[in-house]
Amino acid sequence: MNFLIRHTTLLPMTAEGCEPKSFTGSIAVEGNRIALLTAVEEEVEAYLEQHPECRVIDGRGRVVMPGLINTHCHAAMSLQRNMADDIALMEWLNDYIWPFEAKQTAEDIALGMTLGVVEMLLGGVTSFVDMYFHEARCVEVVRRLGIRALLGCSYFDHTIALAKADAEAAIEAAKGFSHIGIAIAPHAPYTVSRERLVEGKEFARQHGLPLMIHVAETQAEAEYVRKKYDRTPVEWLDEIGLLDEQTIAAHCVWVDEKDRATLKKRGVVVSHNAQSNMKISSGISPVAAMLDEGLCVTLATDGPCSNNDLDMWEEMRSAAFLQKVATGNPLVLPAYEVLKMATRNGARAMGYSEQELGVLREGALADLVMIDLQKPHLQPINDLVSDLVYCGKASDVELVAVDGRIVVDEGKVCGVDLPALYQAVSEAVKRIQQK
Amino acid sequence: MNFLIRHTTLLPMTAEGCEPKSFTGSIAVEGNRIALLTAVEEEVEAYLEQHPECRVIDGRGRVVMPGLINTHCHAAMSLQRNMADDIALMEWLNDYIWPFEAKQTAEDIALGMTLGVVEMLLGGVTSFVDMYFHEARCVEVVRRLGIRALLGCSYFDHTIALAKADAEAAIEAAKGFSHIGIAIAPHAPYTVSRERLVEGKEFARQHGLPLMIHVAETQAEAEYVRKKYDRTPVEWLDEIGLLDEQTIAAHCVWVDEKDRATLKKRGVVVSHNAQSNMKISSGISPVAAMLDEGLCVTLATDGPCSNNDLDMWEEMRSAAFLQKVATGNPLVLPAYEVLKMATRNGARAMGYSEQELGVLREGALADLVMIDLQKPHLQPINDLVSDLVYCGKASDVELVAVDGRIVVDEGKVCGVDLPALYQAVSEAVKRIQQK
Repeated sequence: MNFLIRHTTLLPMTAEGCEPKSFTGSIAVEGNRIALLTAVEEEVEAYLEQHPECRVIDGRGRVVMPGLINTHCHAAMSLQRNMADDIALMEWLNDYIWPFEAKQTAEDIALGMTLGVVEMLLGGVTSFVDMYFHEARCVEVVRRLGIRALLGCSYFDHTIALAKADAEAAIEAAKGFSHIGIAIAPHAPYTVSRERLVEGKEFARQHGLPLMIHVAETQAEAEYVRKKYDRTPVEWLDEIGLLDEQTIAAHCVWVDEKDRATLKKRGVVVSHNAQSNMKISSGISPVAAMLDEGLCVTLATDGPCSNNDLDMWEEMRSAAFLQKVATGNPLVLPAYEVLKMATRNGARAMGYSEQELGVLREGALADLVMIDLQKPHLQPINDLVSDLVYCGKASDVELVAVDGRIVVDEGKVCGVDLPALYQAVSEAVKRIQQK
Repeated sequence: MNFLIRHTTLLPMTAEGCEPKSFTGSIAVEGNRIALLTAVEEEVEAYLEQHPECRVIDGRGRVVMPGLINTHCHAAMSLQRNMADDIALMEWLNDYIWPFEAKQTAEDIALGMTLGVVEMLLGGVTSFVDMYFHEARCVEVVRRLGIRALLGCSYFDHTIALAKADAEAAIEAAKGFSHIGIAIAPHAPYTVSRERLVEGKEFARQHGLPLMIHVAETQAEAEYVRKKYDRTPVEWLDEIGLLDEQTIAAHCVWVDEKDRATLKKRGVVVSHNAQSNMKISSGISPVAAMLDEGLCVTLATDGPCSNNDLDMWEEMRSAAFLQKVATGNPLVLPAYEVLKMATRNGARAMGYSEQELGVLREGALADLVMIDLQKPHLQPINDLVSDLVYCGKASDVELVAVDGRIVVDEGKVCGVDLPALYQAVSEAVKRIQQK
């Protein structure tokens, strides 16, 4: 159904540099595209005359902006949220995460994915990049809930055959749904051998898929790769041909100047996960330097086991604050730049141009959110972009549309019985733990 | 009015060490105290028979815990929220903050305080320590909204007379209101001379008031004090007799081992402001070390100009995450310790014992919050305390009681016309800027 949001504040995110341009006006959506974006009231009147069936939404006291793009997560791990915090990494993996994952079925993962996607939609995330198992099963979840997704079929060294089969099934399931993409996702340079990394890249080329991978997340990884290959993780991946414009590199914490030049030269999209890097003590990624050097840096939550939620508002704030304290310079990562990272920069990770996604522009895909500014923590509005980035919360999101379809309305996710979902999730966790 | 919350999860925060103890039960409030805290249903039945007038609240799917205590802020600066971000400190002060402050009246400050307190109450803050001007005028705001407060009358070197007069008027205005305390608040060792610092401390002693001060916030401050007095800020304040159990030291970023030993020996309460320190690039306070050394470390938001909100949930998360990444140790500041910092540790800053405030215990002051756990980002509940600290949001707060009085009910702050408040705030900002 067409809709038009009227008398609202529009923040298109199309302005270059650090000068956001917002204006009072209206936005109309037809099919999956933005049909009208205007400050001229006569154009709105004319549009409504031609489209009398159009739903009109009063946007007063609200701001409409592009939806947020989460470029790295493991959404189904919401089942394991808070299962094992404040402990060392190997204990976390060996005693909790891996034993639990070994007992999960595709149906469990679909349930975890449902919970994760519902949380993201309610918080204004309209696109996400996932990296996990049984992604073919999750295509149905994503279709039903209506979020835009790039689903990465993940593998360790010995599970590449499963990931390939998962990817082929997922491609089949996603046929005809332009807002769902499939990718191949080798876990990391320290968990996947050269042979299996190259095999994954060839599979990606054959099927025209992007490739996503954890890169240089921890110091231990960097040391392991140095010892084994006498390279940095980035040097190693570049040498074996894994890095190009179709690659999403998650984390990139332990990258030196030369690594960053390589990532830039190859056109790799970097996914920065500030809160996860902090909580797991991975380190501080040189994000301010990367932006300065012209890399495409995007933002992400990582999985809800290491964060522990899927909240991109917190991620924006943490990314900005962490760079400011790490560099000793309060001027780095200003609010508008952070908001660009979370919107139009993310379009690249999803496989779209900045003309088509992550911005409000006539003809662009209609992925947008409406934020209620009538909240004590958002008042007064002395600077709209600072207000959103430094004070905005997931709970301020009132309406969300993806690919032209309204999926969150008046703060409620459409077509989901939340109490039943919580019940099912809680029962699944108990069942898996008792196996 | 008495009330009883039934069939709920209770998190009393009375357990020592890192073993939180929660249980299913009920809590009753009479006057300003907790009258009943029990897991025994028969006790609840007996209580209700004796108190048939008692309002009964269904607490299923909720957790009731002590209210959060914000130990350092400048709440009235909410008027200046987002007014000047991502710029250098001196430009911020000279071009924005100070010119604005010079034109504010006591009425403007009361309005800013109203907005700040409303934001805090909605986010589950039941006590706060403020440091600003015209605090006598703010006593009325605090009385009306019903939050527990310690209001610090702040001064720079040449304004001590104003602060003394403000404090004396505030003491008078707060008479008979046991939940409102007054303090004296010299700005910092680099902005107030020895003479005026000592004079403030004497004034505090005469009136039996606590003293609060910014200490060792930035490297520039530490260097200034070193150059002028050949001391660290903590050494300097100790030498002139400012540090004792009645002192709240905000920030303490640039404190070495010897400084921390001094703070501990004197029984000073430390107020840690993680997000402010990050956003302004002040540095990373050695909080993990301070806790390890047995200091009383509390949490705070700082003013909404340098954060940019008054959200203690974000502050808990940021404090934990920042220490984990700064120390390289994911085990420091575990969730329960962080929650203690934000509740019972804060009681000390407010001038209460841990027996009386910041915990749920029969006979303790009834400052509590009820959190709705039926949210996608809080499900499943694999660990209640991790859930609250790593995933909880201000918007999950459903009910807030201070001193036995319900001040937030069903997520709405009682007795405040929010649209009228936003309107008044917006007009005040315009008026001040046009002066």
